Amino acid sequence: MKIYRALHTGNWDTLIRRPEIDSQDIRPQVTKLLQQVKDNGDQAIYELTRQFDGVLLDSMLVGPQEMQAVDAVDEPLKAAIIQAKDNITAFHQEQAEQTAIIETMPGVQCWRRSVAIQRVGLYVPGGSAPLFSTVLMLGVPAMLAGCEQIQLCTPPRKDGTIHPAILFAAKLVGITQIYKIGGIQAIGALAYGTKTVAKVDKIFGPGNRFVTMAKQIVSQQGVAIDIPAGPSEVLILADSAANPQFIAADLLAQAEHGPDSQCILITDSALLLDQVYQAVEGQAKKATRTEQIEKALQNCRLILAGDHQQAIDFSNAYAPEHLIIMSRDPHADSLKIYNAGSVFLGDYTPVAAGDYASGTNHTLPTNGWATTHSGVSLDSFVKKITFQSITPGGLALIGPVIQKMAQAEQLDAHSDAVSIRLDHIQ
Amino acid sequence: MKIYRALHTGNWDTLIRRPEIDSQDIRPQVTKLLQQVKDNGDQAIYELTRQFDGVLLDSMLVGPQEMQAVDAVDEPLKAAIIQAKDNITAFHQEQAEQTAIIETMPGVQCWRRSVAIQRVGLYVPGGSAPLFSTVLMLGVPAMLAGCEQIQLCTPPRKDGTIHPAILFAAKLVGITQIYKIGGIQAIGALAYGTKTVAKVDKIFGPGNRFVTMAKQIVSQQGVAIDIPAGPSEVLILADSAANPQFIAADLLAQAEHGPDSQCILITDSALLLDQVYQAVEGQAKKATRTEQIEKALQNCRLILAGDHQQAIDFSNAYAPEHLIIMSRDPHADSLKIYNAGSVFLGDYTPVAAGDYASGTNHTLPTNGWATTHSGVSLDSFVKKITFQSITPGGLALIGPVIQKMAQAEQLDAHSDAVSIRLDHIQ
Repeated sequence: MKIYRALHTGNWDTLIRRPEIDSQDIRPQVTKLLQQVKDNGDQAIYELTRQFDGVLLDSMLVGPQEMQAVDAVDEPLKAAIIQAKDNITAFHQEQAEQTAIIETMPGVQCWRRSVAIQRVGLYVPGGSAPLFSTVLMLGVPAMLAGCEQIQLCTPPRKDGTIHPAILFAAKLVGITQIYKIGGIQAIGALAYGTKTVAKVDKIFGPGNRFVTMAKQIVSQQGVAIDIPAGPSEVLILADSAANPQFIAADLLAQAEHGPDSQCILITDSALLLDQVYQAVEGQAKKATRTEQIEKALQNCRLILAGDHQQAIDFSNAYAPEHLIIMSRDPHADSLKIYNAGSVFLGDYTPVAAGDYASGTNHTLPTNGWATTHSGVSLDSFVKKITFQSITPGGLALIGPVIQKMAQAEQLDAHSDAVSIRLDHIQ
Repeated sequence: MKIYRALHTGNWDTLIRRPEIDSQDIRPQVTKLLQQVKDNGDQAIYELTRQFDGVLLDSMLVGPQEMQAVDAVDEPLKAAIIQAKDNITAFHQEQAEQTAIIETMPGVQCWRRSVAIQRVGLYVPGGSAPLFSTVLMLGVPAMLAGCEQIQLCTPPRKDGTIHPAILFAAKLVGITQIYKIGGIQAIGALAYGTKTVAKVDKIFGPGNRFVTMAKQIVSQQGVAIDIPAGPSEVLILADSAANPQFIAADLLAQAEHGPDSQCILITDSALLLDQVYQAVEGQAKKATRTEQIEKALQNCRLILAGDHQQAIDFSNAYAPEHLIIMSRDPHADSLKIYNAGSVFLGDYTPVAAGDYASGTNHTLPTNGWATTHSGVSLDSFVKKITFQSITPGGLALIGPVIQKMAQAEQLDAHSDAVSIRLDHIQ
């Protein structure tokens, strides 16, 4: 942990900066593998799966037989996943926009309609743990939006299977096309399509730097992606009323995500800062992934602000993915926040709640993108198409306005498109 | 014009394809000029303005004295711009999202709030005509969103002034920071900031391929941009009930945008197709920009569909920026549209209405991006931050759900962040 006892113009910029992650070194390799998938389709995928996941599959599609593995999920976990799905559904379905027809002038009607993106691909990373929570966070809004085709890719385990909890979450959401494909080859399959996997319009989901680079490359080839990805971040904004043990626990939870994780505490209380330092040291000794957590904690920054307002200003300048506010009046403070991915208010609202079950989405902007980007929501699975319909009477009213402006912009044929209609009305 | 009398698997893909515009050749030059702005700030901008716009400015900021030029705008044009601004305001202000608090479980409250992007830069291209309509289309939603700082850049004319109509539109919207900077140097100034121009979070606005490339480059350096830009497009979906003269006028208006413009008619009526062909030939002879229009019309495609449904399917596959539906029942047809930027219904709704004055935005996705992207709207100037607040009682309910899921994903410190709080409650 690094302690900064004063914020000033000399260190403010440094403290806001993220570590630069240059992935350009892997670009040629990722480009090459994507090209293999583009050229050789399914055959390339089977070969790359053998190479990277160490398993030669008979079929990349999870069949009905394999889906029976969901029975292996223990009942308490099933119940938890069901509760989380219900909460995520409740929160996301409120994001649906109703179509309102606006008559801007008599006879001039304008409206917009949310229309689902037709074909989406969801990527769920593998690794030591089964990330079934990501299945919910992407699958629930995709279903609510009404996407026509939802395909899910996730790498197979060494024995060629998918973790039952991932299958359970997918089934619960209603996803039927599940493919045992991981990494670069999954992004390639979704971006270009193969005999088995259909080409999609937009790709969602987290991943390591190879997956992130692959998404970045295909996003320049006409496929949309969710949001730019970077290491996870938490900033905790606290005053002397906060509980240092809770803060320490949240910093450790963040550190658990890996050595790249960004953990920041900013407070105007020197006492709290010292208490948090002690509490982190104490809790870290008892943690499960000690080595990994200690590595991540090396980057952890405990910062003393001149006052509470400066702490808020710093938070806005940093634009954290996750912001926890533990202060005397977190609701009042939250109204001053204008840059953050998701905000957690008060002593009893850990980030873990939003990661899993409260209802908000856990796919959030990192690396300062919270200044301009929202996290994943129902909006991410739709586009909003505008419509307009003008009556002859409406055109008689608005026509001269259009003509005047078009002529001033020297677009005479635009003006003519109105004139020919007005002539017809008369 | 090219006529296709049958749609089949052999030509469908070709007819959907856009011309490939490879701008990679200009990347080194654009990168170099951006770097000059980054390194030398204002000085580089004055120098590049002298070089490209042929004028050595005393000040790049438009001062109060220069703003008096708005008086030169003739009254009918002023009235038209005011009407357009009112309509655009009426349509866009309805897009504001109200914050609704969702209690997903007792004591677990989640909500999201639209927060303005703080600093935005609007780019308005120069050229032969003053694009004051773009000032309205970007300035109105920026103001409605409540952006803290709105800067507008537009190239000066040879005499060092800005067209009065642009100044009038900017003043009407409430924009006070207007800079006489064009092209790559404008994008650089907004992206990096100089002594005079403040760095922004997001850049909006159209431009030539140099501006587009500059936006693309800075978007990989942490600055957000509106939507990927490409040549403008119209697809007209018509049946035998449509008026061929109106269709011809709309095709000509589209062609007027330049030789890259994409103009397509698709219809199930062979008679209408022939009538439109004749009408275009007739109207083109009388048009103002004959040479330019004839060049653009070379790419114009008149396509005969097997039936009306196939025509709709083709339109969805093409995903046009502008879609005009002139058919027996345009409202019924519009419900079948799932890929388009903006849709114009019926005989009396020319695209020119949306370009200028009806209220919808004219900054729309091209090049097939309508499959996944929306046009510019109020949404483009805000991000939606999620918030949550859990009471001790709420955490007692949802805590075990979080713990169960976190443990199954092997994120024990996440579970611990809940445990330490539950222990404290008891």
